[in-house]
Amino acid sequence: MAVSNWFDQLNERYWESGDTDDEVRFALIGLGWFTVDAALPAIKASDRCRATVAVSSSREKATSLVDDHAPLKHGITYDDFHEGQAAEHYDAVYVGTPNGLHLPFVETAADLGKAVLCEKPMEATVERAEAIVDAWMDADEPLMVAYRMQTDPVIRRTREFIDAGGIGTPKYALGEMSQVLTRKILPDPEQWRLDPELSGGCALIDLGIYPLNTLRYLLDAEPRRVQGMVTSTQEMFEQVDEYTTFEIRFGNDLTAACVASQNSHQSDQLRIVGTEGRVDIDPVFFGDVAVSITRDGEQLTFRNDETDQLEEEFEYFATCVLMDREPFADEEHGLTDMRTMDAIYRSAETGKSIKVTDTAGQ
Amino acid sequence: MAVSNWFDQLNERYWESGDTDDEVRFALIGLGWFTVDAALPAIKASDRCRATVAVSSSREKATSLVDDHAPLKHGITYDDFHEGQAAEHYDAVYVGTPNGLHLPFVETAADLGKAVLCEKPMEATVERAEAIVDAWMDADEPLMVAYRMQTDPVIRRTREFIDAGGIGTPKYALGEMSQVLTRKILPDPEQWRLDPELSGGCALIDLGIYPLNTLRYLLDAEPRRVQGMVTSTQEMFEQVDEYTTFEIRFGNDLTAACVASQNSHQSDQLRIVGTEGRVDIDPVFFGDVAVSITRDGEQLTFRNDETDQLEEEFEYFATCVLMDREPFADEEHGLTDMRTMDAIYRSAETGKSIKVTDTAGQ
Repeated sequence: MAVSNWFDQLNERYWESGDTDDEVRFALIGLGWFTVDAALPAIKASDRCRATVAVSSSREKATSLVDDHAPLKHGITYDDFHEGQAAEHYDAVYVGTPNGLHLPFVETAADLGKAVLCEKPMEATVERAEAIVDAWMDADEPLMVAYRMQTDPVIRRTREFIDAGGIGTPKYALGEMSQVLTRKILPDPEQWRLDPELSGGCALIDLGIYPLNTLRYLLDAEPRRVQGMVTSTQEMFEQVDEYTTFEIRFGNDLTAACVASQNSHQSDQLRIVGTEGRVDIDPVFFGDVAVSITRDGEQLTFRNDETDQLEEEFEYFATCVLMDREPFADEEHGLTDMRTMDAIYRSAETGKSIKVTDTAGQ
Repeated sequence: MAVSNWFDQLNERYWESGDTDDEVRFALIGLGWFTVDAALPAIKASDRCRATVAVSSSREKATSLVDDHAPLKHGITYDDFHEGQAAEHYDAVYVGTPNGLHLPFVETAADLGKAVLCEKPMEATVERAEAIVDAWMDADEPLMVAYRMQTDPVIRRTREFIDAGGIGTPKYALGEMSQVLTRKILPDPEQWRLDPELSGGCALIDLGIYPLNTLRYLLDAEPRRVQGMVTSTQEMFEQVDEYTTFEIRFGNDLTAACVASQNSHQSDQLRIVGTEGRVDIDPVFFGDVAVSITRDGEQLTFRNDETDQLEEEFEYFATCVLMDREPFADEEHGLTDMRTMDAIYRSAETGKSIKVTDTAGQ
């Protein structure tokens, strides 16, 4: 198999777009920087998405966003949303609030019969993530968890390359995602990411979820058992994990060793090593993606600078809504990450390896 | 601190040679491929070492090596060695037998008053490694464990760079060393590395010891607690670990996530991430060493192709012998690795994180 054949068209989508001129109208819930500076531009750039409603805890914030960003037309509060206001103006909601506030918006969307694109992690605790799954039990519309790596063309092609035996039998993986939170995101020590009620954790929940979920996707395998070590040395991280190392045993016997840190120089990589070769994705999680294939003593590197991950994510989700398709990352998929991360935290607390399926119990 | 100043003289030794014209004469014990193809040429190339005696289980093998390689002069058997034959012709022994056979040669060397350069791991079990420490208790000569990374100039300079704050406060590390054992070393499924009595383990003991020990050296920190996952999928690895992932919590709160595999495409790296920057050493463990420093948005890479790691190792050891200095990697240093690896194996068996200092107990 010629390696270059797998990676020579990286501006292609590698998912079926189908044929439609329809659009999905979005209500944006939670107007933090990611919604405004990342999600909204992606929606504007996409062909099948249109942002029409802005939902915030503050009416002023919502209306001010509407004033600045056509085609947004309706600025409403969280309470307005739960009362069904402006429901005729959107087909789907994008939930971009702090993690621990996702659940009520998903419940209301279920009641209103709207589709949901929910930011990751799905919620702050396993219990609340399970409540999302319950709330969605009878829904006709899709719920997708917003794993932006899964719609990146480089990642999608790498998945097919590995599945086709491109590196022989995959044996193990290394993963890493780190940043200095207060420099990269917000200097404020009062931010919600440091509040365990709102976040459910910090380094693992916010960053470690990237190597965890991307490995699940690339290897088409699910975590069976995990162990981890959590460290917090700074006062700011007194209630959440500053950095976390963890190991995952997947169902196919492959194991992974990973690290996530909220207080280290920016650093990210994913390496998957098989019997016949190696895949390196570095950089991987901060927007730019480059894949290197090492095999038979040669290394080839491929990158794609043309694609915006979030635009792809929104377009893929809108296509699922319009074509009546089940998204790959549905609520059960999101719950598995929640259970896995909960098991890693419990392993760090107890000093024991934890079965991932055990997490619902004690 | 200008990064380039730290790495611009990588053919220098970065250890004090002292002034002497004396030599150390070696008896080579265990004449496998590593002794013959790696250690012997390094001794020949070095200024202060001379190989004079060859010791093998087979008299024929010993005398045939002597015939082919001047200045080797005396070919003797293991029994001859233990009886003190040819003892007047060497000052130090190089112990290059399978791991589980090191102890009696060290004991005899102690009785004969010879210095010892002992291959790593120090032995096959903690108990036998402790017996080496006991045997060496009253010795006047140095015992050094043969960690070749510690005398590599790139590694030595990187250690000083990190110690001087080159990447801020180190927070975590990733390490990896993998090969396909049957392709890289020996195709024979009967080889001693697959026999737990002789080896004490496989992926971790033989390869994982590299990231473990090199991190100890680079970070000037000792393992306090570990956990690990051991996997063997092939019949050949029925009694030993085919691949192992492990986590280490060091005394300075830094944690590391590592992998070692004896049945994966060759792959190695060491990454240390601090608050202000990152050190990548890739490649690192298979002979070639290149270090990249990432800081302030810039990456600089340094390599040194002029130095032979084993020649440096022998020369450093000989200098310790001649100058009456204690080697950095003495028997206590080697014992810590044995205890750490034993704790990782016990963690994998029990599913619990293990204190490294606990290992001498149950």
